[in-house]
Amino acid sequence: MTAADIERATRPGGLAPLFDPRSVAVVGASDNPAKWGYWLASGALTGRHRRTVHLVNRRGGTLDGTPFLPDLAALPDAVEHVVVAVPAPQVRGVVSDGLAAGARCFTVITSGGAGADEERALARLVTGHGARLLGPNCMGVVDTAAELRLSWGDFPAGQVGLVSQSGNLALEIGRLLARAGQGFSRFVSLGNQRDIDATDALEALVDHEPTKAIAAYVEDFRDGRRLARALTAAHAAGKPVLLLTVGRSEASGRAAASHTGALVTARATVEAVCRDAGALLLESAGEVVDTAVCLLAGAGAGAGAGAGVGTRRRAGTAPRAPGAQSTPGAQRTPAAQDTPGTRRARVAVVGDSGGQGALAADAFAARGLDVPPLSEPTRAALAAQLPPGAGCGNPVDLAGAGEADLTAYARIARTLLSSGEAEAVVLTGYFGDYASANPAQERHECAVAAQLAEAAEQSGRTLLVHTMARDTAALTVLRGRGIPVYERIEHAAAALAATEHLRTTPPAPPAPPQPPPAAPPVSDGGYRTTRELLRRYGLAFPDAEFVRSAADAVRAARRIGHPVVLKAMGLAHKTEAGGVALSLTDEHAVRAAFTAMRATTGAGHYAVEAMVTEPHAVELIAGVRRDPAFGPVLMAGIGGVRAELLGDVVLALAPLTPEHARDLLRSLRHAPLLAGWRGAPPVDVDAAARALCALARAAVEHPELAELEVNPLLVHPGGALALDAHAVLAPTERPRT
Amino acid sequence: MTAADIERATRPGGLAPLFDPRSVAVVGASDNPAKWGYWLASGALTGRHRRTVHLVNRRGGTLDGTPFLPDLAALPDAVEHVVVAVPAPQVRGVVSDGLAAGARCFTVITSGGAGADEERALARLVTGHGARLLGPNCMGVVDTAAELRLSWGDFPAGQVGLVSQSGNLALEIGRLLARAGQGFSRFVSLGNQRDIDATDALEALVDHEPTKAIAAYVEDFRDGRRLARALTAAHAAGKPVLLLTVGRSEASGRAAASHTGALVTARATVEAVCRDAGALLLESAGEVVDTAVCLLAGAGAGAGAGAGVGTRRRAGTAPRAPGAQSTPGAQRTPAAQDTPGTRRARVAVVGDSGGQGALAADAFAARGLDVPPLSEPTRAALAAQLPPGAGCGNPVDLAGAGEADLTAYARIARTLLSSGEAEAVVLTGYFGDYASANPAQERHECAVAAQLAEAAEQSGRTLLVHTMARDTAALTVLRGRGIPVYERIEHAAAALAATEHLRTTPPAPPAPPQPPPAAPPVSDGGYRTTRELLRRYGLAFPDAEFVRSAADAVRAARRIGHPVVLKAMGLAHKTEAGGVALSLTDEHAVRAAFTAMRATTGAGHYAVEAMVTEPHAVELIAGVRRDPAFGPVLMAGIGGVRAELLGDVVLALAPLTPEHARDLLRSLRHAPLLAGWRGAPPVDVDAAARALCALARAAVEHPELAELEVNPLLVHPGGALALDAHAVLAPTERPRT
Repeated sequence: MTAADIERATRPGGLAPLFDPRSVAVVGASDNPAKWGYWLASGALTGRHRRTVHLVNRRGGTLDGTPFLPDLAALPDAVEHVVVAVPAPQVRGVVSDGLAAGARCFTVITSGGAGADEERALARLVTGHGARLLGPNCMGVVDTAAELRLSWGDFPAGQVGLVSQSGNLALEIGRLLARAGQGFSRFVSLGNQRDIDATDALEALVDHEPTKAIAAYVEDFRDGRRLARALTAAHAAGKPVLLLTVGRSEASGRAAASHTGALVTARATVEAVCRDAGALLLESAGEVVDTAVCLLAGAGAGAGAGAGVGTRRRAGTAPRAPGAQSTPGAQRTPAAQDTPGTRRARVAVVGDSGGQGALAADAFAARGLDVPPLSEPTRAALAAQLPPGAGCGNPVDLAGAGEADLTAYARIARTLLSSGEAEAVVLTGYFGDYASANPAQERHECAVAAQLAEAAEQSGRTLLVHTMARDTAALTVLRGRGIPVYERIEHAAAALAATEHLRTTPPAPPAPPQPPPAAPPVSDGGYRTTRELLRRYGLAFPDAEFVRSAADAVRAARRIGHPVVLKAMGLAHKTEAGGVALSLTDEHAVRAAFTAMRATTGAGHYAVEAMVTEPHAVELIAGVRRDPAFGPVLMAGIGGVRAELLGDVVLALAPLTPEHARDLLRSLRHAPLLAGWRGAPPVDVDAAARALCALARAAVEHPELAELEVNPLLVHPGGALALDAHAVLAPTERPRT
Repeated sequence: MTAADIERATRPGGLAPLFDPRSVAVVGASDNPAKWGYWLASGALTGRHRRTVHLVNRRGGTLDGTPFLPDLAALPDAVEHVVVAVPAPQVRGVVSDGLAAGARCFTVITSGGAGADEERALARLVTGHGARLLGPNCMGVVDTAAELRLSWGDFPAGQVGLVSQSGNLALEIGRLLARAGQGFSRFVSLGNQRDIDATDALEALVDHEPTKAIAAYVEDFRDGRRLARALTAAHAAGKPVLLLTVGRSEASGRAAASHTGALVTARATVEAVCRDAGALLLESAGEVVDTAVCLLAGAGAGAGAGAGVGTRRRAGTAPRAPGAQSTPGAQRTPAAQDTPGTRRARVAVVGDSGGQGALAADAFAARGLDVPPLSEPTRAALAAQLPPGAGCGNPVDLAGAGEADLTAYARIARTLLSSGEAEAVVLTGYFGDYASANPAQERHECAVAAQLAEAAEQSGRTLLVHTMARDTAALTVLRGRGIPVYERIEHAAAALAATEHLRTTPPAPPAPPQPPPAAPPVSDGGYRTTRELLRRYGLAFPDAEFVRSAADAVRAARRIGHPVVLKAMGLAHKTEAGGVALSLTDEHAVRAAFTAMRATTGAGHYAVEAMVTEPHAVELIAGVRRDPAFGPVLMAGIGGVRAELLGDVVLALAPLTPEHARDLLRSLRHAPLLAGWRGAPPVDVDAAARALCALARAAVEHPELAELEVNPLLVHPGGALALDAHAVLAPTERPRT
């Protein structure tokens, strides 16, 4: 084993022996199609013109002319990649033999029986020799460009790299990709991730030229920060990642120690990570395939990696609709205004049916895409090509012209694609099915399909086709030319909307470098301690004194200045428990409030604070929760019912930049309240953003805290002020980054 | 023509000559498969063993042995239904001939050319003779049970009745139904609705025994109240209606004269109508078919009309999960509590893949369905049938047991179906595809499919199958037995959720009878007039006087009692314009406010009102807008940002019952604010509901008002009080019901 071999096997992304080994051995090969060993062996043999393939079975036999060797010791020369499909008790011995035979990589299909300890020992054995382990309990690995097929099932070749913790889900995605005319560049089945994990596999796809889009199904994120970095790297490389995970309903059952705890769910955290890394979190195999096909539209025609609406046209560079200036806002919501980087993609819909066209327009509009009216020149250009009854607005209704002359589809689509008035054109309805009723039309329909594809290629715009047809020759032509074809209009709309989401939600700026912890750990989560901690990080609080008696409260109020607030310490829900008295305007009121509050709450400690009466203030809630996989996660929202009842909160990994924090606040559904609602002056969102950053940094540097919360964080036109804060200590927390 | 014939043709729902005529004549018949006349004629001939079929073409010819007659005058006897597919200029003459030949019904395919006036004249001609007209510009009519096929395209037979204003959409629905193993009972293409309209066609499906579910695509609702009654009648007959319409994005462009105008969109109105009539408003052909198949599950097995989750099990009658009592709420959100009539359907998920099972569970949970943990006895029963590594929670993961023995699918599904712990069982992933890899398994897989269907039938529960397979023999078995099979897990989840929505959202109680108008029309929409109007209907307002001078304001405040509110009249946005002064505690304050307000607003008229200081009050917004199709529509929401920014409002046709109004308020997303948020006492929702009913009644009885709004309507623990109101007059409104 040379140093170059080790480098080849162990550097990040350098999993060459996994994906394109010089030689492969399948241990547990079989000639019985009912057995895994048959599929692995016959799959391996499909690459024997590229690499040495050895088949091993201690009972002997042969497959497709290749005799089974009794064991790895019988190999004539070194082997690079060993696939293990033997009963669990034999796995360790096979791996030892493989290491002795010089193997750099093991794919262990075998599942069950061994237990976690044995699996970990196996991984130590492999990695201790500088080799790598995929599995155990995995479905294998496929690299279609390298003609490596070490798995079971169909893995059609294509541009999608897949990393999956579920084998059947991979088969489902493969089936759907094949129906959509796409397939896999690589497939990595993760199994129990004892060495090669999801992040390793993702990294190996980022550098892989034939992979143009990445799909991943991950249940167990391991080191979430590392995974997030891999997602960011994929985005930077122009390879969109479409992620599936589980646990969406997890939030419902959890009893939380704080608002932050309830609002920062595992699912919401993954959503935030994907948003900030430029990845897409989706729901199903179908959504993954629909979206991948849309993202890849045109990539086959040489438009480059990850082309389509996503990358071919950057925000702001698309020409404006000629008519847009003359009818500002007439058909557009405020969200449709041309803010650079957030302008909605414009969609033109065309069909030979008014009903299907109208439903299509609604489906795209409902997903936030713009279905704008067409300009007068474009309407005139369409009208010149169509019969009198046709609709030349948007949607365009061919009104029978398509049925009468199939080339009308291509001509009208070309007019729309080249109009400069739509980033995407959607053909909806019947096209692709004419030859079904009249087989004599097949050649003509295929020719029109080719014209449609050509029009899309020449325009550099995206053409999507929705059709009631299935598996017809014309659809094969379209798919072969990289035109996405959908059986459901809502799939086309969702795919384009997801692609747009990816385009208009750029990755978050990198977090600032992390200084070493600035303070010794705190030992309680009460208001006084948390307040002191957060003040050191720069959060502003009202002037306060902590007292135990009415007399001290009165003295404190005198120093602070009336009116003051009196708060009982150590209560979970102060307000509901009668532990907060506001607007105490004189000594008498302070004394009376103290006496009443002590009687009601029995608290031993109290805070006397300056009463804040900033006009036009908005209450925020902010907190940080430590996620097992992703570490500290910041949450912010507009306080009270809005965060609690509606869940209108935003999340991000801590720490974060003030710019990112500001963008997050502005993305709240209730953000108009911050911008000057109903004539009020806007509040100081920058100050709020700085406070969020300080809170995030405090949490990062105090790993002893499981949760940290400021509620409310008052933001007003002149700044931001924390009015209450508390923390939850982690029971046995070790420092982590 | 006998009286019985007229009755047969003209009574509501009595469109027998349309759907099952004793004789039919196709005028414009052709022997050229490229022409509509060919498809109409050959379709008509498929029913010639049931009825006389005449083919007419002035140029002569023959089709399938039937000679073409030169015109209708040449018919040997009377004809009941005439299909017209001739050029537009000839239509009137053909219809006249048809009437002379005794025709009771005309289906006019011919489109274009004639114009609306000629079409209306045609309709008058037909109906003046007591006959009926379908179209013109329609795609015809199909009744599969009556073997009537007067259309173009495939219309597979089944249990879905379709009414459509779009022909191609009908073809798409037909294609999707056929793929799902379902089809049509009847299809009515509405065309330009010059006589028979959507409501007529819906009524004809309600009474039609073979129709078990109804799908409708309607762009133009005509008399919306009549349509709403037809939807209600369909629900009462146990026939769910799945409605598609267009204009979802319409709201975005409209400039509205009031909040009510902006919030009561045409789309939202149709949504409310569907909710209250027990119909479902869906988005696409695919959703209609997915949902129809779910609703019809088991109907083919004799479970009766509209069976499935929707009707087989009424809310509250399903047995509880044995384990539910012992872990109340442990895994359930508040929405999951067992409130009678609103309990979420429980779903058990089973698959041979952990990943697909987990994604399936998430997909159902995300749509509001309950995926509860299984009881210990059920877990034990599952474990006894499965290998050690299998997952016996929910989802159930066969962990290879299905692949090893296909009958495991049927055994486990049976265990879950008969457990009493789930209203629906979802089989997800691979089943249906085993024979694809190994054709020798086909017979066995089909047998297991039959066992699955049998288990569902015997349990009376719903079994849904999601599979990556397509068009395999096993799937044909499942579909033939009425088991819904889906290619996408999200389709299965959405269909079950829609079915559940139908079950848990009962139609609204009938509105109270409408008394004759109680008052002469009002002539302005200002506060003073509107206040007087609404007070007569029972709404409470604070004590007020209307004044023009500071001196009068001071006197009024003295009589009313301080503190008072001063409001300038005649301003669109009073608060923003400085036209509202609150909490005026003495004469000096009233005078100062008046002077300042007059200087700022220049208003000539002012109201002095008692200042309302009810603690724990919640501000509502309420209004009525007159919709062109549906008449007066009530809107209510929680005031301010919640209604305006989030659109958290409810709509209903006016008038309505107090019980309905109360249920609507309780269905707001912000409803917890009304029920005693954070320890506050609950507000008087009944009083608010009565106020909404009074507002609705006022609008119904004052058709001269286009919009009528109370904003805010203050509801507090002791009642409800209108604090402001105004109306918008309809420019040239005629009284309507």
